[in-house]
Amino acid sequence: MADVTDKRLLRGARTRKTVLERAVDIASLDGLEGVSFGRLATDTGHSKAGIQTLFKTKEALQLAVVDFAREMFIDNVVRPARSAPRGVARLRALLDEWVVYASTPLFAGGCFRAANLAEFDGKPGPVHDALFRDQREWLEVIAGELRHAVDSGEIADLDIDLAVFQIDAVLCAANTALRLGDDSAVSKVRRIVEGLLAAPR
Amino acid sequence: MADVTDKRLLRGARTRKTVLERAVDIASLDGLEGVSFGRLATDTGHSKAGIQTLFKTKEALQLAVVDFAREMFIDNVVRPARSAPRGVARLRALLDEWVVYASTPLFAGGCFRAANLAEFDGKPGPVHDALFRDQREWLEVIAGELRHAVDSGEIADLDIDLAVFQIDAVLCAANTALRLGDDSAVSKVRRIVEGLLAAPR
Repeated sequence: MADVTDKRLLRGARTRKTVLERAVDIASLDGLEGVSFGRLATDTGHSKAGIQTLFKTKEALQLAVVDFAREMFIDNVVRPARSAPRGVARLRALLDEWVVYASTPLFAGGCFRAANLAEFDGKPGPVHDALFRDQREWLEVIAGELRHAVDSGEIADLDIDLAVFQIDAVLCAANTALRLGDDSAVSKVRRIVEGLLAAPR
Repeated sequence: MADVTDKRLLRGARTRKTVLERAVDIASLDGLEGVSFGRLATDTGHSKAGIQTLFKTKEALQLAVVDFAREMFIDNVVRPARSAPRGVARLRALLDEWVVYASTPLFAGGCFRAANLAEFDGKPGPVHDALFRDQREWLEVIAGELRHAVDSGEIADLDIDLAVFQIDAVLCAANTALRLGDDSAVSKVRRIVEGLLAAPR
């Protein structure tokens, strides 16, 4: 009996992963509203009833997609950069990993966050909250490295909030530019960020 | 006969305007893909057949919506700023008008352009081209004033392309922040733009 249950759980976990990978692709292309049980069944070959059993409601499915995308972002951008020393070096590493992430996207439609924040900005609820919690978390990573660079005297004092707003804005613009095949955005982002990292006088 | 035709044309023009105003609202909230003959008929009370007669195809309707939004933007942002002298003063005026435009939106969902560029970045075709032509036109307005400010010695020489990329990026980010009720984005935009307008040495 235990063996049958184990196999069933394993099969459920595999289905879950296949479905979520496809759902994240759909959401980065068409937004989370484009993610439905029916479309996922058609795209993955799993039964609609089986997918519904795993995720219950559309909202629960959307929340699982946000969480899955968040983990992929951490695994592919935030974690690799941790091998660089804190401060300016890690900020540059985060930028490098982000450029790879946005240029050869994990997700068919490019940056998952950029594709969905705008869609949910006027729709309060748990999915909105999860998306914005994820966004704040990412901005806090950038802020943390900037703060470290200032505190350790690596760079001149600067308005962290303003710098984070600016970095987030140019990354978001670069994501759009990259989708359009405009690679010059990458060097623009680097120049703008380097401009913020002035040596202390 | 001429009179009957005139009245019919006038009625057609009025219907067209009502439908386009509603369509621009829908597109700024849900994107141009959310604009359909059926929804416009329900929302405006005009018959679906009548609206279809005016616009023919969904693509023609979407193109008319882009054009209508573009004219509203010119009327409300670009034209009022023309009373300011060229260069830094007009750039600041454009920014002020843009802030009014984005804060108390003409369109229910905020900046029409920001809502739709991302949606169409992966969808080649006439609507994509119209959206990006409109975007380029707006960036060229900003570039023109920066160039004038540099050429007339008002501000220090700067990389116009890079500055325009940066201004566009922070305006787009401010639009998202304003939708979320974060008014601090407006002063951030002003500080970042003022930072680009350094006096020549």
